[in-house]
Amino acid sequence: MNYIVILGLLAGFCTTIAVIPQIRKSWKQKKVDNVSPLMFIILITGLSLWVLYGIIQNDFPVILTNGVSLVLNSFMMYLMIKYGKK
Amino acid sequence: MNYIVILGLLAGFCTTIAVIPQIRKSWKQKKVDNVSPLMFIILITGLSLWVLYGIIQNDFPVILTNGVSLVLNSFMMYLMIKYGKK
Repeated sequence: MNYIVILGLLAGFCTTIAVIPQIRKSWKQKKVDNVSPLMFIILITGLSLWVLYGIIQNDFPVILTNGVSLVLNSFMMYLMIKYGKK
Repeated sequence: MNYIVILGLLAGFCTTIAVIPQIRKSWKQKKVDNVSPLMFIILITGLSLWVLYGIIQNDFPVILTNGVSLVLNSFMMYLMIKYGKK
């Protein structure tokens, strides 16, 4: 593995795990009043399209990174529904 | 352009613009108490690495989509600092 591959993996790692501190915060606060549900709806749509794109292109890194993001952001969306104002 | 390219562009469009509703919400509420600043710090780090990766690989779509995301998320980080609790 050369340094460009490592750079790409590091970049993908950061953008994939970024939502974890938000999940942690929402989990602890049990409040999501200042968080936009539309952000996660658009993200989940985009990530689903990326996974579909990866499957069609047979591109494993695209499927893996976006698949993990999809799971994490779907869980965040679940917290949004759970803790959001009715 | 075949339908796979259109699928990829649509996927990239969604994941790029997703933060806009969050910017809009924070701008209106002037409160970010339930939003994680660490999410945006990690995102900005990852997006910067993606732009660097795109520059090294001479990959224009990677530079463009991640560059736009970087600008949008940096603006959101500015709102976090502006409206965050001191």
